[in-house]
Amino acid sequence: MLYKICFEEAFALPASLEDNKPIGFTRADATPEEDLSTNLLDIHGHRLRQMDENGIELMVLSLNAPGCQGIADPAQAARLATMANDYVADQVAQNPARFAALAALSMHDPAQAAAELERCLTAKTGFVGALLNDFQSSGTAADAGGAGNTMLFYDDPRYDVFWAAAARLQAPVYLHPRTPTPLIDAQMWRARPWLNLSVLGFANRVNMHLLALITGGVLDRFPALRLVVGHMGEHLPFELYRIDHKLDRARFPAMPMRPDKLVRDYFGDQVFITTSGHFSTPALHCSIAEIGARSILFSIDYPFESIPNACVWFDRIQLNQHDLVDMGRNTCLRLFPRLAQAPHHLQPKSAWECEIGGLRNGETTYGLYNKSFSKRTATS
Amino acid sequence: MLYKICFEEAFALPASLEDNKPIGFTRADATPEEDLSTNLLDIHGHRLRQMDENGIELMVLSLNAPGCQGIADPAQAARLATMANDYVADQVAQNPARFAALAALSMHDPAQAAAELERCLTAKTGFVGALLNDFQSSGTAADAGGAGNTMLFYDDPRYDVFWAAAARLQAPVYLHPRTPTPLIDAQMWRARPWLNLSVLGFANRVNMHLLALITGGVLDRFPALRLVVGHMGEHLPFELYRIDHKLDRARFPAMPMRPDKLVRDYFGDQVFITTSGHFSTPALHCSIAEIGARSILFSIDYPFESIPNACVWFDRIQLNQHDLVDMGRNTCLRLFPRLAQAPHHLQPKSAWECEIGGLRNGETTYGLYNKSFSKRTATS
Amino acid sequence: MLYKICFEEAFALPASLEDNKPIGFTRADATPEEDLSTNLLDIHGHRLRQMDENGIELMVLSLNAPGCQGIADPAQAARLATMANDYVADQVAQNPARFAALAALSMHDPAQAAAELERCLTAKTGFVGALLNDFQSSGTAADAGGAGNTMLFYDDPRYDVFWAAAARLQAPVYLHPRTPTPLIDAQMWRARPWLNLSVLGFANRVNMHLLALITGGVLDRFPALRLVVGHMGEHLPFELYRIDHKLDRARFPAMPMRPDKLVRDYFGDQVFITTSGHFSTPALHCSIAEIGARSILFSIDYPFESIPNACVWFDRIQLNQHDLVDMGRNTCLRLFPRLAQAPHHLQPKSAWECEIGGLRNGETTYGLYNKSFSKRTATS
Amino acid sequence: MLYKICFEEAFALPASLEDNKPIGFTRADATPEEDLSTNLLDIHGHRLRQMDENGIELMVLSLNAPGCQGIADPAQAARLATMANDYVADQVAQNPARFAALAALSMHDPAQAAAELERCLTAKTGFVGALLNDFQSSGTAADAGGAGNTMLFYDDPRYDVFWAAAARLQAPVYLHPRTPTPLIDAQMWRARPWLNLSVLGFANRVNMHLLALITGGVLDRFPALRLVVGHMGEHLPFELYRIDHKLDRARFPAMPMRPDKLVRDYFGDQVFITTSGHFSTPALHCSIAEIGARSILFSIDYPFESIPNACVWFDRIQLNQHDLVDMGRNTCLRLFPRLAQAPHHLQPKSAWECEIGGLRNGETTYGLYNKSFSKRTATS
Repeated sequence: MLYKICFEEAFALPASLEDNKPIGFTRADATPEEDLSTNLLDIHGHRLRQMDENGIELMVLSLNAPGCQGIADPAQAARLATMANDYVADQVAQNPARFAALAALSMHDPAQAAAELERCLTAKTGFVGALLNDFQSSGTAADAGGAGNTMLFYDDPRYDVFWAAAARLQAPVYLHPRTPTPLIDAQMWRARPWLNLSVLGFANRVNMHLLALITGGVLDRFPALRLVVGHMGEHLPFELYRIDHKLDRARFPAMPMRPDKLVRDYFGDQVFITTSGHFSTPALHCSIAEIGARSILFSIDYPFESIPNACVWFDRIQLNQHDLVDMGRNTCLRLFPRLAQAPHHLQPKSAWECEIGGLRNGETTYGLYNKSFSKRTATS
Repeated sequence: MLYKICFEEAFALPASLEDNKPIGFTRADATPEEDLSTNLLDIHGHRLRQMDENGIELMVLSLNAPGCQGIADPAQAARLATMANDYVADQVAQNPARFAALAALSMHDPAQAAAELERCLTAKTGFVGALLNDFQSSGTAADAGGAGNTMLFYDDPRYDVFWAAAARLQAPVYLHPRTPTPLIDAQMWRARPWLNLSVLGFANRVNMHLLALITGGVLDRFPALRLVVGHMGEHLPFELYRIDHKLDRARFPAMPMRPDKLVRDYFGDQVFITTSGHFSTPALHCSIAEIGARSILFSIDYPFESIPNACVWFDRIQLNQHDLVDMGRNTCLRLFPRLAQAPHHLQPKSAWECEIGGLRNGETTYGLYNKSFSKRTATS
Repeated sequence: MLYKICFEEAFALPASLEDNKPIGFTRADATPEEDLSTNLLDIHGHRLRQMDENGIELMVLSLNAPGCQGIADPAQAARLATMANDYVADQVAQNPARFAALAALSMHDPAQAAAELERCLTAKTGFVGALLNDFQSSGTAADAGGAGNTMLFYDDPRYDVFWAAAARLQAPVYLHPRTPTPLIDAQMWRARPWLNLSVLGFANRVNMHLLALITGGVLDRFPALRLVVGHMGEHLPFELYRIDHKLDRARFPAMPMRPDKLVRDYFGDQVFITTSGHFSTPALHCSIAEIGARSILFSIDYPFESIPNACVWFDRIQLNQHDLVDMGRNTCLRLFPRLAQAPHHLQPKSAWECEIGGLRNGETTYGLYNKSFSKRTATS
Repeated sequence: MLYKICFEEAFALPASLEDNKPIGFTRADATPEEDLSTNLLDIHGHRLRQMDENGIELMVLSLNAPGCQGIADPAQAARLATMANDYVADQVAQNPARFAALAALSMHDPAQAAAELERCLTAKTGFVGALLNDFQSSGTAADAGGAGNTMLFYDDPRYDVFWAAAARLQAPVYLHPRTPTPLIDAQMWRARPWLNLSVLGFANRVNMHLLALITGGVLDRFPALRLVVGHMGEHLPFELYRIDHKLDRARFPAMPMRPDKLVRDYFGDQVFITTSGHFSTPALHCSIAEIGARSILFSIDYPFESIPNACVWFDRIQLNQHDLVDMGRNTCLRLFPRLAQAPHHLQPKSAWECEIGGLRNGETTYGLYNKSFSKRTATS
């Protein structure tokens, strides 16, 4: 598919890479082309070349996790946000036809977070929303839990000032996973580091936070607010029956979510998921059934995932072209209205324009998984 | 689901019922409430009561098959069309909030068919499209094949005058199945009458006609034309890979369909299917994958199918509410623009209005297939 | 997947190819490697090479359609069967580790068909079942319908002597599609030759014959009999709800099928389908739901389909390894017990042996659709 | 479906109910028939009556969670196990045709756990396996984390003595979820109690433990060991692509799991899931695709779930009868070989015997979701 858009795609700030080394993600046998630090720092070089080779028109960039959320010191976290946002704005400005950005935000102080979001979306160009890496680490050595062991979740009503700004500014907020606090890591994950991060721990923690936001009534208080999660919904599409069934209001009368709504009601209206890092066709079909193709958008999770691997998967899915072109592009333009504005000026495209369906250039056959009739040429 | 709309729903003309006795469909053990003749003749009585009981806001009526298509004599076929259309217009006028109609047409003379369609859609009220029962029987005893053994298919270019009218009038055309000619019946079906009709023969014949229209280029010549087939697409959604793969243009250079299109490209834009008479969730999911939920609309096939049986199935499907409410109602309003106009005045509704999703009236739980915790009360 | 078995794979008899030219299947732009006649005549050359390159351990050969079924003269049809069976037995004997055969049979005389089947399965080696090309053409110029216009269907009780032999000999019978009679062709297909054959006509005719056999009680009278159809079941898996729903015994008390059974009950026990020529993942998933993975077997339809195209599709399906290895190999060994015997000696294999699932040769990653991290190397 | 078997079904020990009050599960508007304490204590009364009314032949009982796993004192936990096992053995003995049991075990001391398992499975009758409620609570007030805040996970090699016993005794082990430690509860869940338990927290914690067992190599060291998890696999079937993709051995060379296996390879051979408490057809279909119907078994989670609600869902699933009867009964007999032995003597049954598929008692039609043609009688 041509003209795809993707938006869980990380960059690193040169000045802060040392503090955010993606160590747990490094492979012993990584080739230079897989070097995470190199790929995080690159924007206009091999990243753009891969976009060209894989039918990606525009990539929405975000600061790599945990970013500001991993910094327990409020002032330091806020400084990182400002620095990252100024940096990425400059990068986008160099090629706004191919790049946009999600703002990084310190979430220690909700009003400050709202102000920084507003600065990005009004005083600067190239921003279309924000990305938060799960809970905000907080707490000093003097606290009971020790430094960095306090977790700030954004369903707390004091964050309403932030959500109000996001809703008012038409800025969808992407909730991205992150590492646990040292205390929880020690209790559950340290002995099994392979489970801690993207294998399972990421989803197990961020899905709780997303569900806390939904059941905490944040979306009810701000009907214009849009939330996005990646990785095929962090398990939630598969679980919706059980979640709604077990959120029995007779057991939980104090739960703030509107008593006349189910969690599943928010998907497609206020909650969206992406395919980032979970290129599974059975999981996609389950999600289509449970939340509708209109709630699902293509994304990659570069450079933690391979661009061609993600795109080969997506481009090969056997699915009707209406839903494919929406998932790969057009729904994204509805979700992020700023992509249609200056300096990006993106418009919806037809399946035909995106080279989904149809025959072109004099092709006479359809459906060949292997172009040659008798030689096995198809590769993975 | 409340406010459903359905539109493969038959009525019989009192004056012609004797010639169109639905004999092959009569059960030896039919109860009076299942009597086909009674149910075909009734409109405002138990039909409306069942609509009320099953959440159907509006039913689009059509003359029962084979109707005009079964009459080999052109003048007689045209007379039946006029009589049926005048009759059903009067019926709709009695309750246009709950009923609309598809015009019946003799297809012997394409220009006459176009004129009758125009008469219904402009000089009368209550019509939103037309319904054709597969091929038009033709031929007299003097013909080689014998009386009624000539089959007129509408991919013949002489029918373009008819398709032009349907496109211009924004009148979707429903292609409904029918009985075979006596000659083909004798060759293939007569010894196995159970296979002839709705079990298999209906679909096997009408799917060929629909595919002839598509591959014959009718939809290319009339881009505003909309075709509809029932019975979950008469096998076609399941077959789309094979159909497009085998329609190899290098084998069939004379095929009129646009050389840059696939058959699957027409679904959702110009071709739509309904669920009538095929209440199968696996077949529905296959169709959603192959042609998209936006190409599928709810319908029943009353009185050949039970209204509550169809509605219980549809109302219980475990599927996201966006696609359900579109299939049950809103897509229908896009397909038939006249339903939004006088005298019907129907508007799209939200899932909540249609009682899909959500909790209401103080409900505290979700997902109960059986209302009582410990007594098995769910039936059927 | 390694060690696949496939069994809707055609060969042509050199002496009869002129009478069975696959004209309708020839592409104007066919390369020499796609030449149907060449590929039908070849067995041990590029056919075997492609089997090696695509992980096919054994191919079960059958005479190309319409074969004996297209010959209205009984003696001539029987002669062709004998000649074809003697020929293919010799071919299999040259490499029984890689080839087996389905017997060709004239179906004019059921007792003669039974005798020829018995000859193949007892007096010769290498046969594991039989393949019939839909109805037997019959009728001379003196008949009412004219030469070749009489269709013999095998649900007629006079064929019980044949079905008894097939059941007793543990010989599954593959029901393959074929061209229509001249009379039906003239009525329905001749003006649209692209619809006549594998696009739609094939399935529309042979699915009626299969359903006639099932509803005619053949499987009830011979519980050890096994039937197979290709092309993902010739539409039937998609239709099972409607078929069983409409086969209302109160409407059809004379239908011979056991009154306590549904058509769907026969799948997986006595009726099986193959994937030949319909490499559609949505259709496969629908079939898995409706008839179970255990009822579905891999096959290709060579040389009317490309071996690598079929195998690339199958090898890439995202499905659990239990069902994949059964569909690709192990169910076939249960269906054809003679494949485990001399001279073939095939045994079930594990998913690991077939290279489904797992990591091998020091691989460290899973799930790459594109082997390179940053270069798009995957091709179709 | 008749003759179903289910096995995530809780009982409470009268003497310990006060310590295991299912408080978090109590609904404000619960009717007496929903009273959890009453239902946990009952075995031969309304539980059996509901089994009769819902086609359940046998229920395998287990002590309600957290059971022994919630007791940080080793001696007290072991005493509870012995008391519970003796009690339930007596209950099963009263009606072994309808009940069996899973042993409760303290997991403080692996050798003691193995000994108690052996006692149940050899010295007593009626036990067919064991059930563990996630991690074992441990730690005293003197410990760093405080009382009950140490979590014992069974992938620690010191538990091999226990797993060896389970494998040798052919005792499948069910891994059931439980409440968090006080410390983790305070950090993540206490402010949102509705998320802590079965809505999301249960699965988020127990799926980590199951994956720790698999990736820890326990199943490799004991190839005869069988593990079961409920709730449609605690998210794992949906996540298998991502899990295996991210368990990149080049990142995690110290992970003990066999380097040539994927997590998905264990399902159906050594890991099985049940439908308990997650009666979602889309989730079921996703699981069928990812792990195969043969890896999935019916269960309820009584009395935390309604028996008729679970059974109405399962009995209505539109799925081929082979997979249904296996999921509802026959796979269970393969998983628990002791169910075929004294005192239970259960044998596999056909779909027909279980009243799946077919017509019976003179029925003439199939596929009715609503028994009456014109009255809406189907409820729930």
